[in-house]
Amino acid sequence: VKLELINTGTELMLGFVTNTNHQWLCRELTQAGYVVSRQVAVPDSAPEIQQAIREALTRVPIVVTTGGLGPTSDDLTRQAIAQLFGRALREDAAVVAHIDRFFRDRGRTMPPQTRVQALVPEGALVLPNSNGTAPGLAMELGAAEGEGAKLLVMLPGPPRELEPMFVDQALPLLRARYPNPASFACRTLRSVGIGESLVEAAIAGPLQALVAAGLEIGYCARIGEVDVRLSARGATATGLVADAEQIVLSLIGKHIFGADRAELHGAVIQALAARGETLAVAESCTGGYLAHRLTNVPGASEVFLGGWITYSNRAKQEFLGVKPETLAAHGAVSEAVAREMAEGARERMKASYALAITGIAGPAGGGPDKPVGTVYLGLASSKATRVLHQVNRYDRESFKFVTSQQALELLRRRLVS
Amino acid sequence: VKLELINTGTELMLGFVTNTNHQWLCRELTQAGYVVSRQVAVPDSAPEIQQAIREALTRVPIVVTTGGLGPTSDDLTRQAIAQLFGRALREDAAVVAHIDRFFRDRGRTMPPQTRVQALVPEGALVLPNSNGTAPGLAMELGAAEGEGAKLLVMLPGPPRELEPMFVDQALPLLRARYPNPASFACRTLRSVGIGESLVEAAIAGPLQALVAAGLEIGYCARIGEVDVRLSARGATATGLVADAEQIVLSLIGKHIFGADRAELHGAVIQALAARGETLAVAESCTGGYLAHRLTNVPGASEVFLGGWITYSNRAKQEFLGVKPETLAAHGAVSEAVAREMAEGARERMKASYALAITGIAGPAGGGPDKPVGTVYLGLASSKATRVLHQVNRYDRESFKFVTSQQALELLRRRLVS
Repeated sequence: VKLELINTGTELMLGFVTNTNHQWLCRELTQAGYVVSRQVAVPDSAPEIQQAIREALTRVPIVVTTGGLGPTSDDLTRQAIAQLFGRALREDAAVVAHIDRFFRDRGRTMPPQTRVQALVPEGALVLPNSNGTAPGLAMELGAAEGEGAKLLVMLPGPPRELEPMFVDQALPLLRARYPNPASFACRTLRSVGIGESLVEAAIAGPLQALVAAGLEIGYCARIGEVDVRLSARGATATGLVADAEQIVLSLIGKHIFGADRAELHGAVIQALAARGETLAVAESCTGGYLAHRLTNVPGASEVFLGGWITYSNRAKQEFLGVKPETLAAHGAVSEAVAREMAEGARERMKASYALAITGIAGPAGGGPDKPVGTVYLGLASSKATRVLHQVNRYDRESFKFVTSQQALELLRRRLVS
Repeated sequence: VKLELINTGTELMLGFVTNTNHQWLCRELTQAGYVVSRQVAVPDSAPEIQQAIREALTRVPIVVTTGGLGPTSDDLTRQAIAQLFGRALREDAAVVAHIDRFFRDRGRTMPPQTRVQALVPEGALVLPNSNGTAPGLAMELGAAEGEGAKLLVMLPGPPRELEPMFVDQALPLLRARYPNPASFACRTLRSVGIGESLVEAAIAGPLQALVAAGLEIGYCARIGEVDVRLSARGATATGLVADAEQIVLSLIGKHIFGADRAELHGAVIQALAARGETLAVAESCTGGYLAHRLTNVPGASEVFLGGWITYSNRAKQEFLGVKPETLAAHGAVSEAVAREMAEGARERMKASYALAITGIAGPAGGGPDKPVGTVYLGLASSKATRVLHQVNRYDRESFKFVTSQQALELLRRRLVS
C-alpha cells in the first residue's frame, strides 16, 4: 500500500529547521509495512497546500500531512483542506474542553485565539492530542472527492505531539482501513567501538548467501557508533533477518550493545539494575553530559546515585579528594587525576562504580603534550581502577558525545563480561 | 525567482537518514534571494524521478536535483534525465581523467564501474566534483522540452560533495542565468516564558501596517521557547525587518533572549561574563542537563564553576548541607529544599550565583500533593534566594528541557534587569 507525505511549513522552505518528521514518519510507516512513495514540503500557503494534496490524491490512496494545525495565523492546513473539499468547519465541544483543561492544568487561562484549533471539517474524525492543544484529523474522501475512496490524515507539526498521535491513533486507523501490507522485517543492530569499514569487512562475506536470498544490509555510521540495518520484504522476510542477526552477533557480538532504538546509556542502566549495583560520576570536560544521558532513562535513580561537575582544580580537591600534589605533578588532565576522581567519587557516593572524565574539550586549552581532544576516563570499582586514554578531536558537542560513549562502553564491558 | 528541489534516494523514503541537503540548500538559496516553493523526495526509481522532474518543470523555471549520480546500480538520475529529454549520453574524457586521477591520488586503481559517472547527456554542462568522483550537471531546456526555457541542475547526494559544488559552481550559474533576485532580509527573535498565542496577541496588531507593506511574520513554537521570524523581500526588505524588530522588542522585549541562532544558555554565559560573575548548579531531577547546556558554550569554564547531581536525600545533606529536618518536614521536592540546595551550592562553590532544581521528572514518583512534573527552582545570590514553583507535565526529556529553560530564564532576568 503506497502513501505520500506532505510536510507544511514556511520554515522548512527557508531552511530554518530540519524536517525530522519526514524521517520519523517514513521509518515508522516502513516498519509497519507501508511504502512511502513520495514526500513533499510546501510553505504555509493555502493554494500550495491544496495543490500538493490534490496531486498526491491522484497518485495514492493515503495522504498524511504534518503541520499547520496550530493557533496562529500561519497555521492554514485545517482551513485549506475544508475549503478544498467544500466541507464546513464546526467547533467540536470536546476539543474546546480539552484545550481549556490543557491551559488550566498549567495554571493559565485559555487564550481565545487557541479556540480555532477546535474547528473540525464536517465528517472528519478528531485525533485527540495528549501532548498539546491542536488535535489531528482524519478524513475519508468519497469517490466524488478523489478517484475512488481515499484517506487523508492530518497530524500536528511538533514531534512530541505528532509521534504519540501517530503511534496511538493514526497507525491503528491505517491498519484498520488498509490491513495486511506486504510484510517487512527489519532489525538494526547498534555497535560501538568499531569502525564502519571493519564492521562491513567482518560481516559482508558471511551474509552473502542471505543477500542472494533477498536480505538487504545497510550501514549507518555516526560519530561514536555504527548501525547495521538488516531488512527484507515478503513471506521469508522474518526468517532472513533473524538468520542474519545471528550471524552478525556471532561475528561482532561484543561490540553490539542493543538493537533498534536501544541506547548505550539505557544498556548500562539495565545492566546495573540486573546486577543490583550503583553508579556515581565525576565529570570535568563533559560538563554533566554523561549524567544527563544516564538520567534520561526512566528509573535511572534506582542505580544512578549522582555526581559532581568539577571544572576547577579546587573543586576536584575539595569535593572529590584529588591530592594537590597529584595535580601539581601531572596536571588536571592526566591518568593519575582521572584515577583519583573516580576513586573519590565512588567512595563519597558509596556507589559500586564511579566513572570519571577529565580532558580538553576545546576549542581552546590544548598544548603540544596534551592536544585539544585529550581525555582520560577512569572507572573505579571495589576491585580496581582502570583508566583509558583517548584523543577525541571533534567540535565541542561531538566531543562530549564520543567521550560519554567511551565512558559508558568502558563500564558496559565491565558489567557484561 | 521560484525553484523546486528534488531529493532522490530510497534511504530517504525508508526513513534511514535525515534529509539534511533539503535544509542546507533551502537556507543557501533563501539567503541568495531565491524562493524554494516546493521540495520533493522520491525513491531511486527512474519513473518516479522522471515524473517529479516533469511536474516541477510545469511550475517553475529552475529545478535542482540531489543524489543518484554515483557509480552503483541504484544511481539512476543521469540515465533517467537523458531518457526523459531524449538526449544521448556521451562519455566525457575530462571526467574520465578526473575519476582516474582521484583513485590514483589515493593509491588505488579506478574500478571499471565508476566510469559510468563520466557519461554526460548531450548539451549538458559538467560541474566538476572537487571532493568526489561524480560530477554535477546543468542542462538548459529549450521551449520544445518544457514550457519556455528552463534550467535543470543535478547535484551529487553526499553533503561534502554537494555543498562546495553548489557554492562554487551551481550558485554562480543560477546568478548568471537569473540575476538580481529580490533581496531577502530575515531576523528570528527568540523568546522564552511566553506562549505562542500570547506572542501573536501582543505583536500582530502593532505589526499590521508593516505586514501590509510586505513584512511576513512566522511563529515557531517549541516546548519552552517561541521564535518570531520577521522576513521580507525586495528593495525595502531590510528596513521593514529592522522596523518590525524594534516594534517586537518594545512590546515583548523582556522575553527575547537573542536573535537567529542564539541559545538561552549562551545568553546566560554571556551575561555572566559581562558582569564578571560566576555560577554553580545543584541538580536533582534534571540530572546534569542544566550543566550540560551551560558547558556547551565555548569558554563556559570562565564563569561556570561546576556543580552537583544529587538524587538521594543523603547526597543533598552530605554534599550540599540540606538539613535533615527540612527534608523531614517538607520532603525533597519542596521550596525549602530548593532554597537550601541553592544556598549550599553557592557557598561551597564560592560562586556569585547558584541555581538548584528539585522535582519529579516522572513517569513514576508523583502523588496527589506533588504530581509528576512538580518542580522547585532556586536561585541564590549574595543578596537573596528566590524559589520558583512550576508544574512541567512532559515526557522525561522535554521535562528536562523546559525545566532548564525556566532555571536559565530565572537567572537571565536577574542578570539583565
